[in-house]
Amino acid sequence: MQQLILNPRAERRLKLGHLWIYSNEVDTKRSPLKGLEPGSQCEILDSKGKSLGYGLVNPNQLICARLVSRKGPFNTKSLKRRLENALALRERYFPHPSYRMVYGDSDGLPGLVVDRFGDYLVVQISSWGMENLLQDIVDTLVALVQPKGILLRNDHQGRKVEELPEVCEVAYGEVPKMAPFEENGVPLLAPVYEGQKTGWFYDHRDNRARLNQWVKGQRVLDLFSYAGGWGVQALANGASQVTCVDASSQALDWCEENAALNHRQDDLITVQGKAIDAMKELINTGERYDAIVLDPPAFIKRRKDQKSGEAAYRHINELALRLLNRNGLLVSASCSMHLASDTLLEILRGAGRHLEKSISIIGSGGQGADHPIHPAIAETRYLKAHFVHMSGSVSV
Amino acid sequence: MQQLILNPRAERRLKLGHLWIYSNEVDTKRSPLKGLEPGSQCEILDSKGKSLGYGLVNPNQLICARLVSRKGPFNTKSLKRRLENALALRERYFPHPSYRMVYGDSDGLPGLVVDRFGDYLVVQISSWGMENLLQDIVDTLVALVQPKGILLRNDHQGRKVEELPEVCEVAYGEVPKMAPFEENGVPLLAPVYEGQKTGWFYDHRDNRARLNQWVKGQRVLDLFSYAGGWGVQALANGASQVTCVDASSQALDWCEENAALNHRQDDLITVQGKAIDAMKELINTGERYDAIVLDPPAFIKRRKDQKSGEAAYRHINELALRLLNRNGLLVSASCSMHLASDTLLEILRGAGRHLEKSISIIGSGGQGADHPIHPAIAETRYLKAHFVHMSGSVSV
Repeated sequence: MQQLILNPRAERRLKLGHLWIYSNEVDTKRSPLKGLEPGSQCEILDSKGKSLGYGLVNPNQLICARLVSRKGPFNTKSLKRRLENALALRERYFPHPSYRMVYGDSDGLPGLVVDRFGDYLVVQISSWGMENLLQDIVDTLVALVQPKGILLRNDHQGRKVEELPEVCEVAYGEVPKMAPFEENGVPLLAPVYEGQKTGWFYDHRDNRARLNQWVKGQRVLDLFSYAGGWGVQALANGASQVTCVDASSQALDWCEENAALNHRQDDLITVQGKAIDAMKELINTGERYDAIVLDPPAFIKRRKDQKSGEAAYRHINELALRLLNRNGLLVSASCSMHLASDTLLEILRGAGRHLEKSISIIGSGGQGADHPIHPAIAETRYLKAHFVHMSGSVSV
Repeated sequence: MQQLILNPRAERRLKLGHLWIYSNEVDTKRSPLKGLEPGSQCEILDSKGKSLGYGLVNPNQLICARLVSRKGPFNTKSLKRRLENALALRERYFPHPSYRMVYGDSDGLPGLVVDRFGDYLVVQISSWGMENLLQDIVDTLVALVQPKGILLRNDHQGRKVEELPEVCEVAYGEVPKMAPFEENGVPLLAPVYEGQKTGWFYDHRDNRARLNQWVKGQRVLDLFSYAGGWGVQALANGASQVTCVDASSQALDWCEENAALNHRQDDLITVQGKAIDAMKELINTGERYDAIVLDPPAFIKRRKDQKSGEAAYRHINELALRLLNRNGLLVSASCSMHLASDTLLEILRGAGRHLEKSISIIGSGGQGADHPIHPAIAETRYLKAHFVHMSGSVSV
């Protein structure tokens, strides 16, 4: 097996528990990256020649290797054990087989995501290391959970970066257009072929559960609704009326379908358009809501978007606060890894002060248990949601 | 009314939304603090003479004044409106009248805490400003929620600092020794006269609710158990056996009483002693648990305790991880305002690496909605709990 020798002190992050090796950390004089096969396994050594474990490499990437084992080479047996551990975690914390079953680095499987929708699995691969193991992954998943079908959603942007081919195909059995599953006890359908990512965003499950307690009899506005993760669950939990806003008419069709599945389609209003335009329109027409969900796509995808992204979050949060009834609740979320939870809180503080509204934070949440955070890998933590109570105009 | 004039630029924090004024921020040449009556109201002006609002002062304190109104003097009408807003927030988010009804600064009432146990209220006052309003507070509370009794637990350390007299007495009606209430649907009794603080720690409600989902059929260890907030709720939610450890035998009696109320006293084991000693003993005797709650008192009460406090958290978290079964869950909490959530995460990372255990964070929580966070006052946020899944020995 080939070896990758690190520069002096470059082993520090790995020793703290991280799994990534950057190309500038490799002593390329002693161990050239050039010529290594993408996805092949290397032994990783510190500058003094001490073994740190085994990694899967991609010599053309900034992250040129990811550690997959600290104890002996990574093989199909290791893969099986990792998948078993990942499944054991989900089976301990979820009563129903609807969850992200594998979450990349956090489950010791960098570049692999598997979402489970009851009898169906959707797999996303974003590294050559996992790509080369694809058949083993499929076989092991079949043996572990006996799915009716496995869909490969390998048509995402992340693969371009790694120069992986883009495909969307069934790898095992049969997979329906809309996969039935449940979240927080609510039956739903995920558009696994045509939807974003794997078809569903399980990550907000706990935050949605928190909101579900508080929507009975209320008018709810769900911005950037996608297929109704928040809005339809609110209806299923007794909201009197829900307005879903999304730029995609297809997403709103999925909202309708999910609302109908819960026999609440009559109380769903859909608005196709940009969230900001819709909010301005609703402010002008005097519409107000008891609860608002603001769950936008990542406005800060790279560090260079920091300032403009923060301004964008500030802007939409101010608009949302203006649409809130007295004693109302705003769920302000962000999936930007580069936006710290405390920064979002500070944005909310500023928005409240600017509008002279008295707000307080009655809860804050992150990813659910099926998106476990690796304590040494900050990159595995990206989701945040603040629950903002607005009691009225400021008095103090 | 007397005036307090601030030094140039000292108004900045207040303008951001904070409510505290430090004695070194006052232009004492133009507006001496000396001679001001503790608890009296002053108008607060910036250095150019512009009014910032009204504050209640204590000239002998580092925090010499706290803003109570930005619009006109604070009076009994303002007090009534604040209490109404505080109640409206709780009634919106809680189905049962068991909660912290007033949480100081976050409810615009600095120095006032009111915990509600169904028909009974427990009041704690820690500022001269609120002390002077005591009769109005009691009268308004009686009018608002018609309690059967109000207890003043004004025998806490916080009053010494403000040079307030220490008393514990009934201010209205009658209050039983153990006040009945509920948390997360579990009936409980709070030792309102003899217990710590107001008798109960409502702040962990959401974190306990999260654990309650995951304890069915499990062996649970509850360290620093106090009256059984975690342990008894775990029993009520189907834990097979719970061991409560506390230094106080009285606290363990309350655990027994609460377990009996839930008909689960037969599956409660109580261990009187220091948590660290008990953990070492349990490690030696080979006891292991499926879920462990580690909810210690604040180890970092002041900044100077930072280093020793962090070491103490590290130590007990390592001991707890050693007591965990494979696929087990540790709830690691801290109520130290000076310990950041991320620092606790880093302590857990270090503990896991040191023991070569593979851990991941499957959830993180803070204070419940009845302890709202004021977005401009970092001091209103102090509680954190990480839910740590331990899958086994480290492989990567």
